[in-house]
Amino acid sequence: MSKTLKSYTSTLYPNIALIKYWGKSDEKENKPTNESISITLNKLKTITTISENSEDEFILDGNKIEIPSRMKKLLEYFRNRSIFKNKIKIESQNNFPHSCGLASSSSGYSALVKGLKGFFELNVDEKELSILARKGSGSASRSIFDGFVHLKKENDEYFSCKIADCLNLKVLIVILDSKVKKVSSTEGMNRTVSTSNLFKMRLSNIQEKVNRMLAYIKEENYDGILNLTMRDSNEIHAVCLDSFPPIFYLNENSHKVIDIVHGINKEEIKLAYTFDAGPNAFLIIKNEFYEEVKRIFEKEFKVIEGL
Amino acid sequence: MSKTLKSYTSTLYPNIALIKYWGKSDEKENKPTNESISITLNKLKTITTISENSEDEFILDGNKIEIPSRMKKLLEYFRNRSIFKNKIKIESQNNFPHSCGLASSSSGYSALVKGLKGFFELNVDEKELSILARKGSGSASRSIFDGFVHLKKENDEYFSCKIADCLNLKVLIVILDSKVKKVSSTEGMNRTVSTSNLFKMRLSNIQEKVNRMLAYIKEENYDGILNLTMRDSNEIHAVCLDSFPPIFYLNENSHKVIDIVHGINKEEIKLAYTFDAGPNAFLIIKNEFYEEVKRIFEKEFKVIEGL
Repeated sequence: MSKTLKSYTSTLYPNIALIKYWGKSDEKENKPTNESISITLNKLKTITTISENSEDEFILDGNKIEIPSRMKKLLEYFRNRSIFKNKIKIESQNNFPHSCGLASSSSGYSALVKGLKGFFELNVDEKELSILARKGSGSASRSIFDGFVHLKKENDEYFSCKIADCLNLKVLIVILDSKVKKVSSTEGMNRTVSTSNLFKMRLSNIQEKVNRMLAYIKEENYDGILNLTMRDSNEIHAVCLDSFPPIFYLNENSHKVIDIVHGINKEEIKLAYTFDAGPNAFLIIKNEFYEEVKRIFEKEFKVIEGL
Repeated sequence: MSKTLKSYTSTLYPNIALIKYWGKSDEKENKPTNESISITLNKLKTITTISENSEDEFILDGNKIEIPSRMKKLLEYFRNRSIFKNKIKIESQNNFPHSCGLASSSSGYSALVKGLKGFFELNVDEKELSILARKGSGSASRSIFDGFVHLKKENDEYFSCKIADCLNLKVLIVILDSKVKKVSSTEGMNRTVSTSNLFKMRLSNIQEKVNRMLAYIKEENYDGILNLTMRDSNEIHAVCLDSFPPIFYLNENSHKVIDIVHGINKEEIKLAYTFDAGPNAFLIIKNEFYEEVKRIFEKEFKVIEGL
């Protein structure tokens, strides 16, 4: 075995969805119920190093933990395809506060597949890499690319592609709660798909929404992008509330952030909020208003830069 | 003018909707977008006394306030139909904490129309009375009757009728916040109707839901009644969140109450929660579990008996 194989390091970034994926159509293949669109957050990093080891091992932020079954499957897949058959140690580190719902699984699984490709010296193109990342975590598929990313469906397969650079927007994250969420994304999605009537309505409209967002990005219509982002976030959290038992990811501080954003936008749309499966707010801000918005929020909340 | 006209007192009760009305189809006539079903809360009272006066005056819980325009219209309507033309003082008192979103407008307007009918000595049957109360406040239409009440549509008119006595259920109200709500029901409804996509889905399904609840009440299927009550409450608050800007009536304590209820119901459905346009929880409880449920909630919250 060549010396160069000893270790391989990849660095990837989480992303925040503007049009969200919530609900799986195929649990085994981890296929979403719908296309989605995101921005990659280049200021938050996951650094993953893969090295030869006497046994397969996973070290996350310094702690040895059991290898999750989806990760195990990916590992076997790459090892089987490669001429190298090493056991490996996967060491993954985030440069951002972990366990606070900042989509670390998106950067985690995308860094993993890029790392496995590098370590096992395989010829895997970006499309296939985004499919493999998706099998680990739906949103990880989008983190293979930077800028605006589209997780799309073609011939019954879901994979990501880059739409455009995202040069005119910045992202600020408002940390409202760093507790681990009570209902996991997977559990929450399954509950929504099987119990929410309103979710059916969402699904019947979602492709039109995705197409609208794609058009806004192409036209550089930032008002359109920001407004549709807020509406999609609200809709996702509405279908969570309509699930049975209802799922609440937003807390009173999230509500407060939403009210502040609508207050700032009263005269002119300067920013949007969006929330994943947690209370923390992702603020998508037009460049020219970034400093003004940052000053407003950092007075009252802990904020970190995402892009 | 006969001496007996000097003063007339009526006592009525608020109600809590199990299938809710949220959204108006006709603002001027105050017609709802859909039928609704409620329970009247006979332990909460509004007592309204109407008496001759030198000018029209409205005293609510001891404070003189301006007569709202809808009240003024009702007053004129009754006076015009009557042979008596007195100016009147309307004194209205609630025996329950006011300004905490306990549907005092439902008991208020129903007590008003019953009082006006009595004072002006008019022959108005209960169906018409429920139409007149509705013109003041949609939910007031239901408070004309006790037990389970159906606010229904016939020939493009909305009026209420009693479905059945409600003997096997009790109602406990958990007071979580007594601040006046930030978004009034009227403003909230208009925003939902004009902006929420998910609300369209609700409307397309609502009559089927109403029919299902009517069937459950007829069959005395209490599990069905309680489950459907929770689901309708969740759906209403979901479409509020889907409105733009989103409307939040539930707070973190409301979420907590919801979680406690689902915990209690795990083995066997003992109670339901439902929320109006505010954070306070209305618990609908099977008689046999009332004491057990009351003990659980009064440990942590302020509770009052509703039925």
